[in-house]
Amino acid sequence: MTHHMNTDNTENLSIQALRAAYRNGLTPQALIPRLREQALVQSEFNAWITVLDQETLQTYINALEGKSAADLPLYGVPFAIKDNIDLAGVPTTAACPDFSYTPDENAPVVQRLIDAGAIPLGKTNLDQFATGLVGTRSPYGEAKNSFNPEYISGGSSAGSAIATALGQVSFALGTDTAGSGRVPAALNNLVGLKPGKGLISTRGVVPACRSLDCVSLFTLNCDDAATLLDIVAQFDPQDPFSRLNSHLNRARYYPAKNESGFTFAVPENLDFQNDDETRALFIAAMERLQEQGGTAVKIDFSPFLQAAQLLYQGPWVAERALATAKVHQSAMLPAIREIIGQADNFKATDCFTAQYTLAALKRTCDALIRNVDFVLTPTLPTTYTRAQINDDPIKLNSTLGTYTNFMNLLDYAAVAIPAGFNGATVPWGVTLFSFEHTEIQLLSYGRQLHRHLVTHQGNTRHNVPENDETSPFPAPSAKTIDVVVCG
Amino acid sequence: MTHHMNTDNTENLSIQALRAAYRNGLTPQALIPRLREQALVQSEFNAWITVLDQETLQTYINALEGKSAADLPLYGVPFAIKDNIDLAGVPTTAACPDFSYTPDENAPVVQRLIDAGAIPLGKTNLDQFATGLVGTRSPYGEAKNSFNPEYISGGSSAGSAIATALGQVSFALGTDTAGSGRVPAALNNLVGLKPGKGLISTRGVVPACRSLDCVSLFTLNCDDAATLLDIVAQFDPQDPFSRLNSHLNRARYYPAKNESGFTFAVPENLDFQNDDETRALFIAAMERLQEQGGTAVKIDFSPFLQAAQLLYQGPWVAERALATAKVHQSAMLPAIREIIGQADNFKATDCFTAQYTLAALKRTCDALIRNVDFVLTPTLPTTYTRAQINDDPIKLNSTLGTYTNFMNLLDYAAVAIPAGFNGATVPWGVTLFSFEHTEIQLLSYGRQLHRHLVTHQGNTRHNVPENDETSPFPAPSAKTIDVVVCG
Repeated sequence: MTHHMNTDNTENLSIQALRAAYRNGLTPQALIPRLREQALVQSEFNAWITVLDQETLQTYINALEGKSAADLPLYGVPFAIKDNIDLAGVPTTAACPDFSYTPDENAPVVQRLIDAGAIPLGKTNLDQFATGLVGTRSPYGEAKNSFNPEYISGGSSAGSAIATALGQVSFALGTDTAGSGRVPAALNNLVGLKPGKGLISTRGVVPACRSLDCVSLFTLNCDDAATLLDIVAQFDPQDPFSRLNSHLNRARYYPAKNESGFTFAVPENLDFQNDDETRALFIAAMERLQEQGGTAVKIDFSPFLQAAQLLYQGPWVAERALATAKVHQSAMLPAIREIIGQADNFKATDCFTAQYTLAALKRTCDALIRNVDFVLTPTLPTTYTRAQINDDPIKLNSTLGTYTNFMNLLDYAAVAIPAGFNGATVPWGVTLFSFEHTEIQLLSYGRQLHRHLVTHQGNTRHNVPENDETSPFPAPSAKTIDVVVCG
Repeated sequence: MTHHMNTDNTENLSIQALRAAYRNGLTPQALIPRLREQALVQSEFNAWITVLDQETLQTYINALEGKSAADLPLYGVPFAIKDNIDLAGVPTTAACPDFSYTPDENAPVVQRLIDAGAIPLGKTNLDQFATGLVGTRSPYGEAKNSFNPEYISGGSSAGSAIATALGQVSFALGTDTAGSGRVPAALNNLVGLKPGKGLISTRGVVPACRSLDCVSLFTLNCDDAATLLDIVAQFDPQDPFSRLNSHLNRARYYPAKNESGFTFAVPENLDFQNDDETRALFIAAMERLQEQGGTAVKIDFSPFLQAAQLLYQGPWVAERALATAKVHQSAMLPAIREIIGQADNFKATDCFTAQYTLAALKRTCDALIRNVDFVLTPTLPTTYTRAQINDDPIKLNSTLGTYTNFMNLLDYAAVAIPAGFNGATVPWGVTLFSFEHTEIQLLSYGRQLHRHLVTHQGNTRHNVPENDETSPFPAPSAKTIDVVVCG
């Protein structure tokens, strides 16, 4: 496999590797300023809207004094925050300068990470108001693919994916309403976890469609995503959309899976936009799963695609208008204005009609995937250059969401996994999805697939962990079982 | 207690009593035609839109041949069906002749009852399109209170309540969006069970607000409601709004409760519309619960009332417009037309805004009732004559929903329990409510309260069962527990 290799970074920033480095003498004081420097030097990617100044970073480093990796699960772990999520004292722009405000408090998801020892490096670039899957819709510069800057990075969580892929941070927070946490993962050789709705609090997050938005995680591998999910998937009584996690969806259940056969569904008809390279990558991923004991079954994918069409062609666009009501539409980029301007076309009756349609589609889709362990799809049909997107911004953006737009409407959890590179050395990926509360199960399947499809993590020189390395989590003992007494 | 006693009926139609009568020699052939006759004779109450003809009833009776009460849990049990629920071969009017259609199939809830041996006596009168809490909004005649015909019966499930109270049927199906299953129960000395959303399939039911509608049960006592709930609370994969019942919400858990102390919440401020009689009845109900070991705690009720206001002042009225779109508004009664005509005022943005408001209110309300076993409220503030309603039809209707309108929006289950009579011999009642899947628990508390507040079932000469009678359900043995193995 040949691809453009980023050689600026030397440290393996995956959480497990970094914890080992800290145990072996590395210090946050040595690492974090170096990463800040790297983020500033690699400015041509337009990954950042705000990189924290050294003084601010120093306060985070100082706060870890007297602690160690033994005390804190994310001791000194650097991370990036999409700039629609609040970091106290730093502007939240949502990539719209007129919208910008400076929050006094961290979003709960940010607070939990900082409490666990993680250090925020700054706020990342995005498609304005998280409305887009391209990464080019930003007054802070078009985000560029971390492997081939002529290509889009994907969006809307563009900068979060780029910063993680370039080894500037260990992981990044994104948001995902229509695919914003998965498309950029695929295009930057990363794992992208879009948890089920409500699993991570969305308080302190600028809404896109508030009833659908999820906070997402960009990580170098599946182990890191499982580690982080346990830390951030906590019920938030102050977020009306927060939901309790299920008992079995914890990291302790992560590695002890998939020893025997499993079944996965694949859409009957797949759309690659006539891209033979991405088609071949998908078939290779399918074959790897089959080699690992998976049985593939074909399913009718049309009800999923019908649900997807509701997102931008239906009344949910009214939520985007509500979320941005405080700025005049003249302050928005033309593409964003065009989308949000459609909100006025929808009446309350349209809203309920669409919700009925969606409820029926969910019943149909649920039945189609009830008897498989997960569904395997492309994460996006094909890759595009920035020039292609600029020539046809709305239609190609819509194509990028083919396999992602339905996910939150249908209340599913999804993990995007790297699946290789096209001839232009641009990464591409596949997605595993299933019902809510299957995140840990999806990550465990993703883990065993990941290292068979690519060698490196992001655009770094560090390899994807082998399955037989020490797991980050203690497996449940075969000698004990959890028992719930019901009556 | 003095009240107008209906002496036409002789049989105790409560399910347990009727099963005993069948075991002792009574036959459906002897009973059912007699009840049909009674329904026709008591026509002045306007309870029925369609009473089945004798030939049709005979086919139901014949279908039971060779069976007995030992085979079928509802063997020969007569019931009434609100005329917005499909009974195959009989018109469904929703109290709007222009809307009428004749379904080929039974609604699943009706089918389950018939499969269990129950016999439908006919279709009952209602406020048109189930829009109203009065019972007077019908071209089939104003429904009249079963105790005092000058008074309203309550609605919209007016005829279902009247037929049950008059001893024409053992129980009746209603629907409940805003209180239609509870207000008529209170005004006719009945138990009214409004299960949580989705617990009983709403397929084959004319929607009012499809996202909120529930099928409800009018019964003579709580035991009957628990018996019926077990039969009809079954997941329907073809109803997108159907939800699975919880394991602990089955009739087998019904009687083995409340041996020790319990806690119930009461609103801090109560609105009785200056009716001292209903206020006294409420206080008496509270005192009975306290005598039974209950501890009353006051809660702020304003968030519940805020949720209630969303129902008719918010975008949910658009659902009523969708449900009735096939008839011209000129075919509707003026009051219905006035309500449904408001649908056009609401945009999709209003719809999402209201849904956000509701989600936040639910979080607030949930927290207020989290630590109590149930909430006790009036079912309605006061009683009204038909003349009073006709003088001020919209405003007084709205007052009737004070304690009921919020229930489905907030996703709670509720049981209306008889609580006595006012000076005009009109029944009035209280409601116990709590989270979804607490129906059996609510009924068990309701059971021990019921016989301490009134002596008779409906407007019949038969007493409410004593708590120490044989329970209709086997209690879970203290020697076994249910165990769910989780990992």
